[in-house]
Amino acid sequence: MTHYPKAIQDAIQELSHLPGIGTKTAERLVLSILRKKKQDQTALTASLTQLQNNIRMCTLCGYVTDNSDGICAYCKDASRNNNTICVVADMQTLQVIEKSGVFHGAYHVLGGTINPIEGISADMLNIESLLQRVRSAKTKIREVLLATGTDIEGEQTALFLAQKLKPLRVKITRLARGIPRGSNLEYADEMTLADAIQNRQQV
Amino acid sequence: MTHYPKAIQDAIQELSHLPGIGTKTAERLVLSILRKKKQDQTALTASLTQLQNNIRMCTLCGYVTDNSDGICAYCKDASRNNNTICVVADMQTLQVIEKSGVFHGAYHVLGGTINPIEGISADMLNIESLLQRVRSAKTKIREVLLATGTDIEGEQTALFLAQKLKPLRVKITRLARGIPRGSNLEYADEMTLADAIQNRQQV
Repeated sequence: MTHYPKAIQDAIQELSHLPGIGTKTAERLVLSILRKKKQDQTALTASLTQLQNNIRMCTLCGYVTDNSDGICAYCKDASRNNNTICVVADMQTLQVIEKSGVFHGAYHVLGGTINPIEGISADMLNIESLLQRVRSAKTKIREVLLATGTDIEGEQTALFLAQKLKPLRVKITRLARGIPRGSNLEYADEMTLADAIQNRQQV
Repeated sequence: MTHYPKAIQDAIQELSHLPGIGTKTAERLVLSILRKKKQDQTALTASLTQLQNNIRMCTLCGYVTDNSDGICAYCKDASRNNNTICVVADMQTLQVIEKSGVFHGAYHVLGGTINPIEGISADMLNIESLLQRVRSAKTKIREVLLATGTDIEGEQTALFLAQKLKPLRVKITRLARGIPRGSNLEYADEMTLADAIQNRQQV
C-alpha cells in the first residue's frame, strides 16, 4: 500500500500538469501546502480562483487584463505611441521589453511562435488580429517591430509575419543583433560576433 | 508600467511562497494556468480546495488521512505488525520505505528533523506522541526503527530519540549502512566504504 489519500493524489496530478513540474515536485509542493496554516492555504486557492474569474485576454492585443471591457492597460494608455506595434511571442517577453524602458509604443502578443514540431501553426497564433490592426485605417500603424526570438522558431515566425505584413505597406523592423551588454568577447560565439561586426555602428 | 493585473500578481505571489518556486517560475506557472482550458483551471483549483478540506494529520502517527475519524490507512490496517514502529522524518520517506516492500510494521512521522540552524527544536516534532505510543501498554511496541537520514540532522534526531526511548525498555534500531545497491566501488566514498567493511556480513 503506497498511496496517499485521494485528495492528495488529485492535487499532485493537477500540479504535475503545469510546465516544469514533475510528479516528485508536485508531491513536494502538495505536502508543503498541507504544512501551511489554513489561512495561507485559503489565500493560495483564492488567488487561483480570482485568476480564473477575473483575467481575460485583451481583445485588441492578446495581453491579459482584468478590465470588464476586455481592453488591457497598455492598449488603454493614451500616452503611448500607437503608431508602432511591438510584436512579441508571449507576455513574459512583453514584460522584459517594458522593463527595459525604451519602448513606448503598442504591443501585440502572438501567444507563441510557429513550431511545426510542437504542432503550433500560424493559424493558432494571434496573427489575424495583428493584420487587422495594421489594415484598420483608424489606428494608422507606421511600424511593426517583430520582437520574436533569434532561435529557429522566432526567425520563422518573423519571416512569416514579414511576408503577411509586406502588402500592407508598413515599415517592418527586427531587434538589433550584436554582443550582449556586459559580455567578455573571449566567450562570444562566432555567429553573434559576425552579426556584431556586420551591424557595426559609427561612434 | 510593468505590471500584470492584480489577480495575476496575487497568484504569482502566492505560488512563489511554495518551496523551490521563485518569482520567475511562479510567473511562468500562472501564465501557463491562464492558457489552460477553463475546465482544467477549475480542476486545479478544485483539487487544492479538496486538499484543504479533506486532508488532516493522523492523530496517531502524524501521516495524512482523509478518514473522518482522523486515523490514517496505515494505522487502521490490521494486517500490519504493530509491534514495530518505523520513525521517519517526513511523509515522502514513509512512501519510499513503503515502496521498498520490506517493512510491514507501523509508522510514525516526525514532521521534520531537529535542526537548530533552521530553528526546528525537538518540541516542534511529533516526538511526545511517539513516546506516548511506546509507553501505552495497549499497543505493546517491541521495536522502534529510527529511519531518519544519515546527515547531521538525521543523526542528531536519532540520537535524541534514542535517549528518550531508552528508559522505556524498547529495542531501538537504525537502518543498516553500507554500499548502495548498483554502485561501482570505484566511486564509493571512504566513509561509506568504512561503514560497509565494519558492518560486513557472512555469506
